[in-house]
Amino acid sequence: MTSRRYAIIGTGAVGGYYGTCLQRGGAEVHFLLHSDYDHVAQYGLVVESVAGDFALPQVQAHRSTATMPTVDVVIAALKTTHNGLLPELLSPILGPETAILTLQNGFGIEDELAAWMGADRAIFGGLCIICANKVGPGTVRHIDYGNLLLGQYRRDRQPAGISPQLEAIGQDFRAGQVAVELVSDLRLARWRKLVWNIPFNGLSVVMNATTTEMMADPNIRQLAEQLMVEVLEAAQRDGELISPGQGRHLPKEIVAHMLAHTEQMAPYRTSMKIDFDEGRPLEVEAIYGNPIRAAQAAEAAVPKIEMLYHQLKAIDRRQSKSLS
Amino acid sequence: MTSRRYAIIGTGAVGGYYGTCLQRGGAEVHFLLHSDYDHVAQYGLVVESVAGDFALPQVQAHRSTATMPTVDVVIAALKTTHNGLLPELLSPILGPETAILTLQNGFGIEDELAAWMGADRAIFGGLCIICANKVGPGTVRHIDYGNLLLGQYRRDRQPAGISPQLEAIGQDFRAGQVAVELVSDLRLARWRKLVWNIPFNGLSVVMNATTTEMMADPNIRQLAEQLMVEVLEAAQRDGELISPGQGRHLPKEIVAHMLAHTEQMAPYRTSMKIDFDEGRPLEVEAIYGNPIRAAQAAEAAVPKIEMLYHQLKAIDRRQSKSLS
Repeated sequence: MTSRRYAIIGTGAVGGYYGTCLQRGGAEVHFLLHSDYDHVAQYGLVVESVAGDFALPQVQAHRSTATMPTVDVVIAALKTTHNGLLPELLSPILGPETAILTLQNGFGIEDELAAWMGADRAIFGGLCIICANKVGPGTVRHIDYGNLLLGQYRRDRQPAGISPQLEAIGQDFRAGQVAVELVSDLRLARWRKLVWNIPFNGLSVVMNATTTEMMADPNIRQLAEQLMVEVLEAAQRDGELISPGQGRHLPKEIVAHMLAHTEQMAPYRTSMKIDFDEGRPLEVEAIYGNPIRAAQAAEAAVPKIEMLYHQLKAIDRRQSKSLS
Repeated sequence: MTSRRYAIIGTGAVGGYYGTCLQRGGAEVHFLLHSDYDHVAQYGLVVESVAGDFALPQVQAHRSTATMPTVDVVIAALKTTHNGLLPELLSPILGPETAILTLQNGFGIEDELAAWMGADRAIFGGLCIICANKVGPGTVRHIDYGNLLLGQYRRDRQPAGISPQLEAIGQDFRAGQVAVELVSDLRLARWRKLVWNIPFNGLSVVMNATTTEMMADPNIRQLAEQLMVEVLEAAQRDGELISPGQGRHLPKEIVAHMLAHTEQMAPYRTSMKIDFDEGRPLEVEAIYGNPIRAAQAAEAAVPKIEMLYHQLKAIDRRQSKSLS
């Protein structure tokens, strides 16, 4: 079986890491770059990894999608705050069979993609369980984890199962030494990832703290736990909309499990904290606004998530004003 | 009718302002001072007021309650975080008939005083509707408002009505040109004041903002409103514990009313924000912990107040660590 041709839209920490893995596994990968273009075109990409550093001295770097060929899979790895650019960015590289895989944070991204992609386009979502930051031009520091959950999106929000196309994409990542788990219910996996992202991304900005500092404070730890429980409840009710009496069940134990994991992690600045520290827009709608609206549609009460949303919107607004 | 003899325990913004008013009205007032003692003993007290500046060149200043006579009314006006000192501070000045009036912020302070004062001691509470800050030794800047709600505490939490003793104390303040309102249900008045204090004190610290900045942000404004509604609900349920089916009713309109007032106020740093900026302990238990416990006892859900409590506890803990 030959591997597919990929385009990485947004070569930051996530796009750089997983794109490098795909190429290392033998796939043809085209990287879209902006400020790093010159550096990457000349020197390639480097991943400084806990699992051993690796480098790709030569990659197919592009300043624009106009110079890319049509690809089999487009990987969206830019910040969700820039998703308005996607229709224009993707038009040169979409063939009739091209699939979209979003590796972006948050919730409801696939719904937004589906809204302008037409009914027949295959859309996949990937959840990157990874601590990684871009630390310089073409250079990603991979701190911890790295596994990838892949699932297929269905417009009716039912579990999509595992298609041969999903299997094939998973195989390309595995060839690049990524631990891949295929999931039949992408929306459930998205909720599951929010169990971590909702408390720690937002609180790291509002409380100005690393994961280690948050876990060391008994009140922040308790608050993180309460936020996690709200996510579980929202997921459950969201699932009951499509399968009454059943829900999208996430076992209560994952709360204690994730807290324990976070406690053992090296001190970590979350992606939202890094965005904040670097003066970039925060992904408030993807990580908070969309899940809150889904919770409201399912009549789940998420008051603490709402409060965090309001605080983050105010912080994001203040920052955008002070920078403008 | 002769006026009573007062001791002001804690001559900060509140103690300084209202003590000065009492003396101006003809009462005998003894001021307990700490760092400002030398200055005040020599120059007296000054209030720079929106209603016209006034000064008392001579006051009865004390370094210790040991030099004070027994008084008719002790006014507790120190930060609630120092209330552990009160039993020792008050012992030299308490006669058998001495009453206590706490002008402190928050909730449940009278319960704490009652716990060590014995069953017969009259305890009053005063709610200071005032924007005032201490701006220098013996100098209070009075920015806005200034009225005082006075009520009597009852150990069974029933409304105490308006006793002759309460009337007499109110008269002493009125003589000093304070607009006094006597309230029959002190606990209801405390809840009412929390409707403002709970959103704006806490959010001013967590969001690092003045009242004007908070009101100008649509998300913070909405969050303030939601916090206010939680306080109304808690007050209602708290009242139902003592008068089932009735509750401690605060009309919904006060939310819009307080928001509009806050919008029109001069930009104001809340008392908690000033404490934070000056590295002092925050009154988190008085303003948040005690009301939350009362709400829980009454089975009222106050999730956003709880979240603010956790955030403030963490901020207070971090500050106390960085200063120690």
